[in-house]
Amino acid sequence: DGVGERRAKAERMFTLMDGFLKNDPLSLQKDILNHVEYTVARSRFSFDDFEAYQALSHSVRDRLIERWHDTHSYFKRTKPKRLYFLSLEFLMGRSLSNSVINLGIQDQYAEALSQLGFEFEVLAEQEGDAALGNGGLARLSACQMDSLATLDYPAWGYGLRYEYGLFRQVIVDGFQHEQPDYWLNFGNPWEIERIHVTYEVKFYGTVEEVDMNGEKHRVWVPGETVEAVAYDNPIPGYGTRNTLNLRLWAAKPSNQFDLEAYNTGDYINSVVNRQRAETISNVLYPDDRNHQGKELRLKQQYFFVSASLQDIIRRFKEAHNSFDELPDKVALHLNDTHPSLSIAEIMRILVDEEHLHWNKAWDIACKVFSFTTHTVVAEGLEKIPVDLLGSLLPRHLEILYEINFNFMEELKKKIGLDYNRLSRMSIVEEGAVKNIRMANLAIVGSHIVNGVSKLHLDTLKMTTFKDFYELWPEKFQFKTNGVTQRRWIVVSNPSLCALISKWLGTEAWIRNADLLTGLRDHVDNTNFHQEWKMVKRVNKMRLAEYIEAMSGVKVSLDAMFDVQVKRIHEYKRQFLNILGIIHRYDCLKNMDKNERRKVVPRVCIIGGKAAPGYEIAKKIIKLCHSVAEKINNDADIGDLLKLVFIPDYNVSVAELVIPGADLSQHLSTAGHEASGTGSMKFLMNGCLLLATGDGSTIEIIEEIGSDNLFLFGAKVQEVAELREKGSTLKVPLQFARVLRMVRDGYFGYKEYFKSLCDTVEIGKDFYLLGADFSSYLEAQAAADKAFVEPEKWIKMSILSVAGSGRFSSDRTIQEYAERTWKIVPSRCPL
Amino acid sequence: DGVGERRAKAERMFTLMDGFLKNDPLSLQKDILNHVEYTVARSRFSFDDFEAYQALSHSVRDRLIERWHDTHSYFKRTKPKRLYFLSLEFLMGRSLSNSVINLGIQDQYAEALSQLGFEFEVLAEQEGDAALGNGGLARLSACQMDSLATLDYPAWGYGLRYEYGLFRQVIVDGFQHEQPDYWLNFGNPWEIERIHVTYEVKFYGTVEEVDMNGEKHRVWVPGETVEAVAYDNPIPGYGTRNTLNLRLWAAKPSNQFDLEAYNTGDYINSVVNRQRAETISNVLYPDDRNHQGKELRLKQQYFFVSASLQDIIRRFKEAHNSFDELPDKVALHLNDTHPSLSIAEIMRILVDEEHLHWNKAWDIACKVFSFTTHTVVAEGLEKIPVDLLGSLLPRHLEILYEINFNFMEELKKKIGLDYNRLSRMSIVEEGAVKNIRMANLAIVGSHIVNGVSKLHLDTLKMTTFKDFYELWPEKFQFKTNGVTQRRWIVVSNPSLCALISKWLGTEAWIRNADLLTGLRDHVDNTNFHQEWKMVKRVNKMRLAEYIEAMSGVKVSLDAMFDVQVKRIHEYKRQFLNILGIIHRYDCLKNMDKNERRKVVPRVCIIGGKAAPGYEIAKKIIKLCHSVAEKINNDADIGDLLKLVFIPDYNVSVAELVIPGADLSQHLSTAGHEASGTGSMKFLMNGCLLLATGDGSTIEIIEEIGSDNLFLFGAKVQEVAELREKGSTLKVPLQFARVLRMVRDGYFGYKEYFKSLCDTVEIGKDFYLLGADFSSYLEAQAAADKAFVEPEKWIKMSILSVAGSGRFSSDRTIQEYAERTWKIVPSRCPL
Repeated sequence: DGVGERRAKAERMFTLMDGFLKNDPLSLQKDILNHVEYTVARSRFSFDDFEAYQALSHSVRDRLIERWHDTHSYFKRTKPKRLYFLSLEFLMGRSLSNSVINLGIQDQYAEALSQLGFEFEVLAEQEGDAALGNGGLARLSACQMDSLATLDYPAWGYGLRYEYGLFRQVIVDGFQHEQPDYWLNFGNPWEIERIHVTYEVKFYGTVEEVDMNGEKHRVWVPGETVEAVAYDNPIPGYGTRNTLNLRLWAAKPSNQFDLEAYNTGDYINSVVNRQRAETISNVLYPDDRNHQGKELRLKQQYFFVSASLQDIIRRFKEAHNSFDELPDKVALHLNDTHPSLSIAEIMRILVDEEHLHWNKAWDIACKVFSFTTHTVVAEGLEKIPVDLLGSLLPRHLEILYEINFNFMEELKKKIGLDYNRLSRMSIVEEGAVKNIRMANLAIVGSHIVNGVSKLHLDTLKMTTFKDFYELWPEKFQFKTNGVTQRRWIVVSNPSLCALISKWLGTEAWIRNADLLTGLRDHVDNTNFHQEWKMVKRVNKMRLAEYIEAMSGVKVSLDAMFDVQVKRIHEYKRQFLNILGIIHRYDCLKNMDKNERRKVVPRVCIIGGKAAPGYEIAKKIIKLCHSVAEKINNDADIGDLLKLVFIPDYNVSVAELVIPGADLSQHLSTAGHEASGTGSMKFLMNGCLLLATGDGSTIEIIEEIGSDNLFLFGAKVQEVAELREKGSTLKVPLQFARVLRMVRDGYFGYKEYFKSLCDTVEIGKDFYLLGADFSSYLEAQAAADKAFVEPEKWIKMSILSVAGSGRFSSDRTIQEYAERTWKIVPSRCPL
Repeated sequence: DGVGERRAKAERMFTLMDGFLKNDPLSLQKDILNHVEYTVARSRFSFDDFEAYQALSHSVRDRLIERWHDTHSYFKRTKPKRLYFLSLEFLMGRSLSNSVINLGIQDQYAEALSQLGFEFEVLAEQEGDAALGNGGLARLSACQMDSLATLDYPAWGYGLRYEYGLFRQVIVDGFQHEQPDYWLNFGNPWEIERIHVTYEVKFYGTVEEVDMNGEKHRVWVPGETVEAVAYDNPIPGYGTRNTLNLRLWAAKPSNQFDLEAYNTGDYINSVVNRQRAETISNVLYPDDRNHQGKELRLKQQYFFVSASLQDIIRRFKEAHNSFDELPDKVALHLNDTHPSLSIAEIMRILVDEEHLHWNKAWDIACKVFSFTTHTVVAEGLEKIPVDLLGSLLPRHLEILYEINFNFMEELKKKIGLDYNRLSRMSIVEEGAVKNIRMANLAIVGSHIVNGVSKLHLDTLKMTTFKDFYELWPEKFQFKTNGVTQRRWIVVSNPSLCALISKWLGTEAWIRNADLLTGLRDHVDNTNFHQEWKMVKRVNKMRLAEYIEAMSGVKVSLDAMFDVQVKRIHEYKRQFLNILGIIHRYDCLKNMDKNERRKVVPRVCIIGGKAAPGYEIAKKIIKLCHSVAEKINNDADIGDLLKLVFIPDYNVSVAELVIPGADLSQHLSTAGHEASGTGSMKFLMNGCLLLATGDGSTIEIIEEIGSDNLFLFGAKVQEVAELREKGSTLKVPLQFARVLRMVRDGYFGYKEYFKSLCDTVEIGKDFYLLGADFSSYLEAQAAADKAFVEPEKWIKMSILSVAGSGRFSSDRTIQEYAERTWKIVPSRCPL
């Protein structure tokens, strides 16, 4: 009877829980209002837009959870090979709109809310950005998660749940100040706290040798233990039930008994000190290389790696009996070198804990890992001082030495005693400060090493990773980065989305961006042109309103909206843009009325954050503001030229700015941008590019043809030569003139801007602003010329979108899946 | 049409949200399972007891939220005078059982769960304790909140949401170790995070004088700002819809722009430092006087006071126009001196921010505050060094000086230049270290000062607050503490609860404890006796199981369960208990078989935490374990005597131990326990007391008669005289003998116990263990004698419960409401 009774109870439970949440407007309304009362705990008579947003989000979350469960049950049952995507940064932005679109219930929600007197778009604006990353690399991770889900790949993302995301940029008197981003202060309905999914992460201590059944084992006796708690973020695919998991780890004080520490009598101080040690893993480092060699940063990396690998190995062991199967069931992807301690950690787990023999373990590890580098130049590569690593992770240092010893021995057999090359390829860098070279570790431990564009890989082969390429040419691949059209068209540019679907006669391009080429069929259709133009105008209007709200500057919709938004960096050459604007201003001032009548009015828009410790970048921001103040207050110039700095550039600002841009600038000195994904987003939004032949731009040209963008500047193979010229390099007079204006204090702050101007003086101009200036002005002139021929401009714009399909992250992910990870789609049935 | 449309939308919303959650078993099941899937985010096919507990609690929480909303809407509408109960500690224990009982849906839940294959009691065991307090004072606050809600008083509780509650006591080798209590690590469904209810709390900085419209104002320019976020804990009343709010404040980093701090370039360090400063207010201080003069503790106090008063004043201003109404609408109660900075803070708000004149503000403040002291001796009173206060709260120090200056001037007019008395009564204590006397501040600023028992007030009048009593005799009242019968009978002793209701023929005693006297009518009924005995046996069985699980010691249910559970402290004299046990053991060892046959078997149970820095208390714990090891392993003794230490004593352990006790010991040296609430809980559970004539025991005797408990020891008026005798005090030989056994290492750890033994040597025995020893042994003998006459014992037990009605916190609260706060019940309609 016990069995019968139990079965009856289970059946009762099943009946009660069966059936999914309904998505008709009335059901949605009930769910939203339930969340108002019971989750947000507001009275039914008073709740504001933010509280309505919270309730709305919770109702969406419920629907995400259903699919997320089903997806993971399905994977558990079918046991496909899984990809684990390890990245220290994910720049997710907002989730609400993206979620309802991917769930396919956007219209139902809009209707449900409208009947209650709310507007979906207004509530969506209440959401803050999840800014757990710095820039391109981090947003790429987010785009790729979207593609993995949409394409039904069995994948997991792993990262860190920073309490404070990337700093908020606040501009005071034109200077950047940094504010911590307390993004969790207002709750986060998009994550599911998994209080039972926790792992102990160890630090410090010593390594002891222990005899077990006659075998000697190295045992790490840690000095500190922190608990990692999982926070799961469902990632819904578009047009599929599949909903993946992005698992982010938070540090909490360990429940582990630690009697020593708490028997000092000074209980409060013990607790407070311990608390400090633990909450420390919660700040996202701004990407300014200042973090290299910092203990806190290394702690973050290992905390992330250790929790993730424990979780992955536990899941593997639940379903499989032998580690021999690991390479067939698990692909571990290292997004840049930040997670590359994983290689040492997996060796520690397999050898120390699972007692596999070293060689067998190493064989498995090498088959499991793949690696993508986002760096171009050798100086950008991550290094960790051996002293630091040995103190924080004593056992891992031993393992790294053993990996390196074996590698060196193997290498000597192949290349002989070429000590220069051996020392270049060694994982351990000798010198005054001994370092671990994380990239070398990642290359040695991975079976595939990826560049992020064709040009990037070519550069790596010839320079940074030349030695490794010659040793293992088959290891090196490239997968050009991509961006997801769901976020960058469907969510952020609904008018364009509708227009594309109308003219293609299908929405299938949302899952298959190659179909965008179909727009070429209509490139000469004037009705299409008309509608295209209207879409752009709507988006420009939205952007103009934002600009006025943020900065008080009114801009003309007839002007060309010329945008450069990205992190502020010398190699990205925002300074070149500003000098160009000064030149334009200078020309305008010297024109008579007639000449001015022919000028194309411009709104120059610049946005981006400078790393807090990067002084020159901060000076560029200040210069931008000083120049803007001069120009925007010059009544003589009026609408012919405006300069606006958009503060606190982030994903949701990008969603507003990109659709509203006519022209976008990508000015990196050739050979410095590994790929560049910003340009792809603009391309998808029908914005024309003004760019150097750098990173993925080369491939964009292959798709849309060089006639449809404004290319300028030294080519990558010319750069070295130009640099060698040093002070004999010829620089145009205009360049010297505009630089002189800055130096002479024409925009104020003469002293402050001096060191900035020094960086581009002849002979010191590493990024070749002077050398590229004439070419840059010509490209700008070409853009002006094109803009006054609207038909031509619109055609170029249409062809940009039509050629953007290759730059969907779907294509990137498909290449990774097939060529690197060897995973296949696994679609959860309805 | 706009109006009509809006009305239609509002109506739609109202219709959808109308109607309360249903409480039939099927509805409860659906709600629980919904929470399993969407809140706990577990798959419908796998969730464990803990997850079931979480889902269950969330369904209860939903029901609490409904009533909590309605109660506050009702108060808002009817605007009664409100009580604000300020306490730095609330020892709430578990919430689940208490909530479903007070909501009146216990049976429905039990049935709903049983049909799903779960047992309510098993799930309830999954809940951890909310241990946001040390002992009596903190549990009293919790009991009083329950009474306030049940009696329909319009009240709010205010406190701190410590991340870490009172430390967990772990015993290793008989020694106490302290573990931080990460009680929030597993989520807390009983609180509602109110992310929009936040206040800035300021610290440090300077005070400037500013001229405003010709008037000079003092303006505090703070140096640091922390944000207080509200966490609301619904407190349901029993037999009423009223559900009060206990609002606990958590510290979060301030969103306030703080540009200076973030422009140093070293962004990460700035953030980390700032984070440290802010999370610091999250550890509960163990009550060991070690905290006095600690900056962190003062920060906690002010953080709590400032956030609470801002909230209270905001609410007052929303409903009322003039501060003249404040004393008619607001009562502020200071639970001990911890929140007494409130007096300075309200002056700061009224004078500096609301620009009232000083005298008017002071007049209002004095009418608003009341104060309860829980301290007996002057040395126990809180002091804050002036230097510390001036640095952390510069403006408050000025205000305190002004309050004191005015008070001193007024006093001089009344008592003349009696400088000794003036200096004793001054708020500012002069000396090598200048201090603020918090009790003097609280007395000066309150209109009523309360003791917590009659004896306590009498003692205060004659000693500690003599000067003040002579000045303001009308200010001084006493309200004997009480405990809530809902928690201490209904929740923790369901068998006794049912038995009482059966014999009284009503459950009305649950709201009116005076009805318990009705049990006297049945005191001679043998059927009643039989059932009474069975109830005790069931509870003893439950306790015996727990003891075996915790310590491995099997105990006999026929033995007398003799319990002393409370904080470990010299004045509470656990050492006396242990010495008595040693004496009993010694006697047993010297008995022959025949004599032993007459001995009443005993299970001595001791439990309690020692403050981490309190060495002597920790030695008492170790001694208890050493003695237990000796006795429990002595086969010769067997069931005649067992000694068990119950580790980590807290509210939920108390709920198990108290109903299972036959005898309970309350041994404080007379004049040292202000009230004592432990004894009341035992009394309510029919456990006989063995106690000194201290605190509220005097009043217990008034209720149940001295025949029904075992009184011993020096009376309060004899203590001073005994102490004066010093080394001439006579101490019985048995005392010297048992102490000698400890000293000689009979229980090991000879050296370690030396300093403990020193504390009770003749001439140093401040707490008079030696003087009271004979009397103690006699009382114990009397208890033994009574125990072998079951009829007599049961009668005493029944009469204890019958006389416990006066010690309900309902009575305490009613007295406060009528005599101090002047508030009246305000019952939210159904």
